[in-house]
Amino acid sequence: MIKINRPFARGTAALFQIPYETRLSECGSKHLALYQALRDGIVSGLLEPGTRLPSTRQLAGLYRLSRGSVSLAYEMLAAEGYVRTGIGQGTFVAGRPGSLPPAAPALQGASRVPGEAQTEAGAEAASRPPKLELSAWGERVNRAAGKLIGRYADPPGFAGVSFVPRGMGEKGFPWMEWKAAVSAQWRKLGPGADNRWTTEGSERLRRVIAERLGRERGIRCSADDVVITGGSMQAIAIVSQLLLEAGRTAVVEDPGYPGIGFAVHGTGAALEPAGVDEEGIVPQDWRADLLFVTPTRQFPTGAVLRLERRLALLDWASRRESWIVEDDYDSDFRWGGRPIEPLKSLDREGRVVYVGSFSRTMRSEIRIGYVVLPPALREPFVRAKRLYDPYPEGIAEQNALAEWIESGGFDRHLRRMRRICHKLQMRLRLGLEGPLAALFETVPSDAGLALFAYWRGDEADYRRLRERSRERGAFWQDGSRYRMADGPARPSALFGFAHLEEEEIAAGIERIRQAAVELKLIPHGDHGDQGGSNHA
Amino acid sequence: MIKINRPFARGTAALFQIPYETRLSECGSKHLALYQALRDGIVSGLLEPGTRLPSTRQLAGLYRLSRGSVSLAYEMLAAEGYVRTGIGQGTFVAGRPGSLPPAAPALQGASRVPGEAQTEAGAEAASRPPKLELSAWGERVNRAAGKLIGRYADPPGFAGVSFVPRGMGEKGFPWMEWKAAVSAQWRKLGPGADNRWTTEGSERLRRVIAERLGRERGIRCSADDVVITGGSMQAIAIVSQLLLEAGRTAVVEDPGYPGIGFAVHGTGAALEPAGVDEEGIVPQDWRADLLFVTPTRQFPTGAVLRLERRLALLDWASRRESWIVEDDYDSDFRWGGRPIEPLKSLDREGRVVYVGSFSRTMRSEIRIGYVVLPPALREPFVRAKRLYDPYPEGIAEQNALAEWIESGGFDRHLRRMRRICHKLQMRLRLGLEGPLAALFETVPSDAGLALFAYWRGDEADYRRLRERSRERGAFWQDGSRYRMADGPARPSALFGFAHLEEEEIAAGIERIRQAAVELKLIPHGDHGDQGGSNHA
Repeated sequence: MIKINRPFARGTAALFQIPYETRLSECGSKHLALYQALRDGIVSGLLEPGTRLPSTRQLAGLYRLSRGSVSLAYEMLAAEGYVRTGIGQGTFVAGRPGSLPPAAPALQGASRVPGEAQTEAGAEAASRPPKLELSAWGERVNRAAGKLIGRYADPPGFAGVSFVPRGMGEKGFPWMEWKAAVSAQWRKLGPGADNRWTTEGSERLRRVIAERLGRERGIRCSADDVVITGGSMQAIAIVSQLLLEAGRTAVVEDPGYPGIGFAVHGTGAALEPAGVDEEGIVPQDWRADLLFVTPTRQFPTGAVLRLERRLALLDWASRRESWIVEDDYDSDFRWGGRPIEPLKSLDREGRVVYVGSFSRTMRSEIRIGYVVLPPALREPFVRAKRLYDPYPEGIAEQNALAEWIESGGFDRHLRRMRRICHKLQMRLRLGLEGPLAALFETVPSDAGLALFAYWRGDEADYRRLRERSRERGAFWQDGSRYRMADGPARPSALFGFAHLEEEEIAAGIERIRQAAVELKLIPHGDHGDQGGSNHA
Repeated sequence: MIKINRPFARGTAALFQIPYETRLSECGSKHLALYQALRDGIVSGLLEPGTRLPSTRQLAGLYRLSRGSVSLAYEMLAAEGYVRTGIGQGTFVAGRPGSLPPAAPALQGASRVPGEAQTEAGAEAASRPPKLELSAWGERVNRAAGKLIGRYADPPGFAGVSFVPRGMGEKGFPWMEWKAAVSAQWRKLGPGADNRWTTEGSERLRRVIAERLGRERGIRCSADDVVITGGSMQAIAIVSQLLLEAGRTAVVEDPGYPGIGFAVHGTGAALEPAGVDEEGIVPQDWRADLLFVTPTRQFPTGAVLRLERRLALLDWASRRESWIVEDDYDSDFRWGGRPIEPLKSLDREGRVVYVGSFSRTMRSEIRIGYVVLPPALREPFVRAKRLYDPYPEGIAEQNALAEWIESGGFDRHLRRMRRICHKLQMRLRLGLEGPLAALFETVPSDAGLALFAYWRGDEADYRRLRERSRERGAFWQDGSRYRMADGPARPSALFGFAHLEEEEIAAGIERIRQAAVELKLIPHGDHGDQGGSNHA
């Protein structure tokens, strides 16, 4: 015991190799610094098992601490088993686990402070990353997600006119109105308020959405059929996992929404690309368990699915006992008449899952999507959602949105947006169907935030024009980004316009035209950026 | 053509079996009502292919509509392929798909209005739910979720003192302060604001959390290592899916958190229950890929994992090349000294995933959790999160929380909560370790919102007391709810106290005592609800 007590008779300089002062400057709290310094000393073996620690009074005096701080540090050490206290006997370093050698790398490193030189063993342990064997699901999701990265980005350093779609940009969203609506809901939160929420989301918003879908889209559903999701991706991912797995097949539109491909790949199911023409997806008698379709406005081409095909898809699902996910991603952005009624409104057997979102119509920051589930899938969906998102994150936003829809604010916003988008799309078409008509074949559309166009010429010319346009300060989204199948395909382009101003669109088109003239893809013209005449 | 035009010469009464007026009262919009009435007529076969529809002028006159409304309805029908328009020729009902018989149930039903009598075929189709073959994952998740339902509920109609844990209840949360913080962030949102957000969550909150973890828990990490999640369940579910699958094994504490069992079952991996004693989980040389552990305060028993065991777990993970998920679910509710430092702070090899949450320390409505990921798992985790929750839902709340932590408001709130919880727990222990000490053996704890107790007697007596107490107006959470293994186990109980007032706790204990006296489990005493003396 003499040896053990010796350091305290002489002072504590020899006690801690990890100085208390360093710890103090690191963690800013005296008792925590003391606790850490002692703990590190014990873990590193500097303080041997059985060592008697100084009394709280001694230690408080040595370090100019209050006895309360020292007691606190000792209590923490005792609670974790670093020290043992016998009443009236003092505080002793507890026995260290026999299974671990005194200088095991895992322990040595634990006492390292930033900047301190590592031992070789410690450096080796730190530099050798643990072997990671992901699950098959983890591998698939990683691979599929990797393909998505950078899809929607401008080239590095690009500062020209970018037609890469990015929603409405900063344009036109009534922030003041929306913030007032959310603030009003926030004021209502608190003790005694009706804060009912469940995995399904705000009951009020679900009711308002059900009513709106009935009124605007002819979908007869109740709040019970609607589940609020964190954007539409969550709904697509969960439905995919419920219905797909290795050995099953999902049909996806080609070109189509890459997020759907991501979700399907994640499940391990086979992905069967389905062709799309100017009337939307071409129905076939697929051997498949699930079909993803964007009937109201095909993504990305914008084609409207004809009635015959809609009925044929429902008929297919009925005969094959398959399911359909209808992704109605931007039906609200239609200025040519009312939004077209969805497949779901024709679904008599309960085979269609209808997915919608407010992230496009409002702001991408507003992550409110929803799914209308057929009866058979409702409970399985809600149970699965509990894994990832058991309770809604933004109940105030959900209630605010319900209020905004009921008060008519949302529809006023939509009308404004439709006018703006219509005007901007017309400006874009003036160019693509005017000076660039010999190069691009646009797909007619009276909705949306982006316009799809096929390339009329050969692929080499397309690539040259794309590169030259980029150099001249105009960039568009390559249509191949939306391909679901491998192999050759007609070059195509997606021109997002909703985030731009009319002058920017005109300037971007003019730069592409100049690039095309330089490459001798179209004859020289003198109309500048006015567009309108057809050089084809 | 004469037959086709006849209805319009005579009037339109015969034209629509689904009256326009009914539609109008349903959908509140004239052109939409007309569109739906026409569409239903076409789909049901009442309007035959080739039928020429009246001109917009005729129809507008017949229904007292504006010609604009009629045009809009016709445009919508044309866009969807229900009608075809030849310039100067009029509007004709389009051909219906040959593959579908005129009276197929799927079509007949589409024209049904609410309350209308269904045809037999339609009724049959509606009453026969589609065959649902969930994926193996879907089946597992459904089964596992089903076991969770009703776990934390009071008995139906129960109106007494319920010790079923439910967080802090309405007590003490500084709603005004928090709302002001969120409102301030809401005001900053909008055009031109710095609204940077990614799948990982608010960069500012991630930085603040990393700093706080370094200061308070000794976890050295940066914002890059932290990902914000929608509560801790999302983190647990995603990590499970990344590392587990059929053929792999996860070790879980028994008793333990049912949500972890849910996540493990979902992956198809085997679940190996690990015993827990008064010093936490008992380390073994498990053949397993992943270990879930609550070292700071074992859930639900409250035991603190001793240092030897912590080091043994890390050693196990290193030797087995396995991973550890440390669920630090309520370390912030510790009044006995500082929060105990987590396993993660001793993790040198990068094998520990640290999961935390603000839903317990603040309000369960606030769904902000986080995960500190070792380098190897960071990117796979973020990629997988993109499937379910690609962007944070509540960026304003996230930024508000960062601000609240930095300004010290969160810590002030925690200190208040700790004082309250300490007092309430002491009141509960006065009862459980006083008049009920002969029945229950509490597990010492200086933290948390609930107190765990083992039953000293036999199971039959436990069940009788539980039932009699319920009748007398006191109910607790049965410890078997947290069992991970099947088979017999010592009866136990979890007493949540944080949502109650001191008087409620005393009243609840007194009711249990009376019930125990009635059942002759303890002798009659005369101390009422004062507790303190031991009848064992």
